Amino acid sequence: MKIIHGGIAAPNGFSASGIHCGIKYKNKDLALIYSKVPCVASGVFTQNKVIAAPVIVTKKHIKNDKAQAIMINSGNANCCTGRAGLSDAQKMCIALAKKLSIKTIDVLVASTGAIGKKLPIDKITNKLALLTNELKPHAGTNCAEAIMTTDTKPKQIAVKLKIGKTEVKIGAVAKGAGMIAPNMATMLGFITTDAAIDKAQLKKLLHEAVDNSFNLISVDGDTSTNDMVVILANGLAGNKKLTSKELKLFSKALNFICLYLARAIIQDGEGASKFIEIQVEAAKDINQAKNVAFKVANSPLVKTAIFGENPNWGRVAACAGAADDKVDQHKLNIYLGSIKVLNKGARTQVKQEKLISIFKKKEIQIKINLGLGKISTKVFTCDFTHKYLEINAKY
Amino acid sequence: MKIIHGGIAAPNGFSASGIHCGIKYKNKDLALIYSKVPCVASGVFTQNKVIAAPVIVTKKHIKNDKAQAIMINSGNANCCTGRAGLSDAQKMCIALAKKLSIKTIDVLVASTGAIGKKLPIDKITNKLALLTNELKPHAGTNCAEAIMTTDTKPKQIAVKLKIGKTEVKIGAVAKGAGMIAPNMATMLGFITTDAAIDKAQLKKLLHEAVDNSFNLISVDGDTSTNDMVVILANGLAGNKKLTSKELKLFSKALNFICLYLARAIIQDGEGASKFIEIQVEAAKDINQAKNVAFKVANSPLVKTAIFGENPNWGRVAACAGAADDKVDQHKLNIYLGSIKVLNKGARTQVKQEKLISIFKKKEIQIKINLGLGKISTKVFTCDFTHKYLEINAKY
Repeated sequence: MKIIHGGIAAPNGFSASGIHCGIKYKNKDLALIYSKVPCVASGVFTQNKVIAAPVIVTKKHIKNDKAQAIMINSGNANCCTGRAGLSDAQKMCIALAKKLSIKTIDVLVASTGAIGKKLPIDKITNKLALLTNELKPHAGTNCAEAIMTTDTKPKQIAVKLKIGKTEVKIGAVAKGAGMIAPNMATMLGFITTDAAIDKAQLKKLLHEAVDNSFNLISVDGDTSTNDMVVILANGLAGNKKLTSKELKLFSKALNFICLYLARAIIQDGEGASKFIEIQVEAAKDINQAKNVAFKVANSPLVKTAIFGENPNWGRVAACAGAADDKVDQHKLNIYLGSIKVLNKGARTQVKQEKLISIFKKKEIQIKINLGLGKISTKVFTCDFTHKYLEINAKY
Repeated sequence: MKIIHGGIAAPNGFSASGIHCGIKYKNKDLALIYSKVPCVASGVFTQNKVIAAPVIVTKKHIKNDKAQAIMINSGNANCCTGRAGLSDAQKMCIALAKKLSIKTIDVLVASTGAIGKKLPIDKITNKLALLTNELKPHAGTNCAEAIMTTDTKPKQIAVKLKIGKTEVKIGAVAKGAGMIAPNMATMLGFITTDAAIDKAQLKKLLHEAVDNSFNLISVDGDTSTNDMVVILANGLAGNKKLTSKELKLFSKALNFICLYLARAIIQDGEGASKFIEIQVEAAKDINQAKNVAFKVANSPLVKTAIFGENPNWGRVAACAGAADDKVDQHKLNIYLGSIKVLNKGARTQVKQEKLISIFKKKEIQIKINLGLGKISTKVFTCDFTHKYLEINAKY
């Protein structure tokens, strides 16, 4: 497997564009991903019960496991907008389908930005000629820029790998301002591939990859109203449908891509000054491991301590004890970096200066060994800073 | 019912003291509450599975529903301290019982402060003569001061009420730095009364009062390792055991006291600039109402918006949708103050200036009507500020 240029538009037959249509005062705010042939498609969507209009429309359109284009706007979430919002999301699909001469049901839409504002639909439809004219293969950057909100960097990647004798490519793009994004329109991710792949397999691999990447980053425990990750596979690489051995190779590449983008989201976290890895070991099951890991990852006390470079591991212990009924303090061990600070519920004797030097680093590892079973997990988060507070007080 | 002076030491037969013993560099750090006769006692304790040593000892001592003295230190939580910590908590009881010539099992202990530090037990035992000599009736303030950590104000109240022909008093003291306290040693509350009351009734009324007060304030969803609320009733008012009608009067006063202290904790929240009331109406059951209310109350996005006086109600909607699977956006209504901003899932047309003027106030009401049933609840929280971040980065 090799990393290549081109982002979301790297795989054969895909092209992308990103333009300024006027939803934002300046900067690109409208993106398009397009395959010259219809694709097998699969998606993972927000579990929030307050669901944005584009999510409702996209879930409906992807039900047949097919799609050919995805249009995304930033600067407005089109959420809590009632019937008007739903009609606007549908208009986006109808207008684009007409422009591209494809079926309306093969267009997916996504929106990200402030909740509760009317979508300026005319600004979008008026610029569809420009948006489609700009479509180019290998040019994912414009698309990556056009889906940003408080992101400071575009997030994209592409890889190629040999599967049998065929070269297969996967491209991807994401947005997300990390830990907590403004208005919780936290994260969008889109993936393209020219591999030919069975639709049931595609769905399975996407769910696995998302569980092992985007679902392991801390977004405040809050599920956004607009989250989605969608993959399109157009089959233009020319391979035969992937065998089970080949699926493993593909899956490995897909996991790599999703984890790369998930880490990029945390690294670009709003106001973040530290990248934090929370590892939970020896849990009795995956739910317990995740509950403990996310309780620590989402704790304002832990995040502010790390911001202050203050190795206050008592806050980690208290989170572990609060996260799960089955946690037993007499079996609980905690490590900061490689140093054990809690041994079966009792403090060890470590020099504070040693711990402070660990917390002075830019990347911080915290490990919690529950001593209850054999299951592990690892989640990623960032710290709480004054800049974070500034961004979210004003947005 | 009338508010009176004296705090925790207002009821007949109770006295209190608070001194500096040296756990903290300066300021009072050791408190005592004492009844001249043994009391009926009941307590409510942290649900955290990482439990501080004093909580373990106190739970054991209160099992017989009796107690006569409570000693509390601040500046050290005596948590994650292993066998040594447990032994220290026991020593506190043994030494004080000897000094007061009462039974060891009738002494309860509590600690609050940093987790994972060895308790300097000698500093406590060396000052027991001073602590007991300082005991005075009607003098709750010293005790209230000695249990403070990052609290900026002592928190106490006392009331008297006529029950039948007898005057009954209730006194109380609490500590807690609001939303999230340093090290999550969030909250301690102690209540005394001279009413004669059946132990089963006392337990029931305490649980009800705590559920309607301390359990309705946002402490970040994190349960502290050291939390406790304990009530002592010494019967010296001279009433006969309370009848069911009289119990209602007593219960009303107890609820008033607990809610007063719970609000005082939020008003003194670390770095807080706003007092926030989150009301949930028309829920199908109390769990749903609380889940939604606390999701909003604990949301960094909502708290930072309120700090920024930015009426971004979309964040409230997203919290409601994330909090409970049964939330239906087509039935969801949201009000900021008295202004409806979301009507059955769709935005209303309100001038932004009107909403901003509501968020400029010191006390802010947010109401969420789920349209699903008949159950309501109300929880209290405060905002996220730069001062909060400063306090918790350094502590």
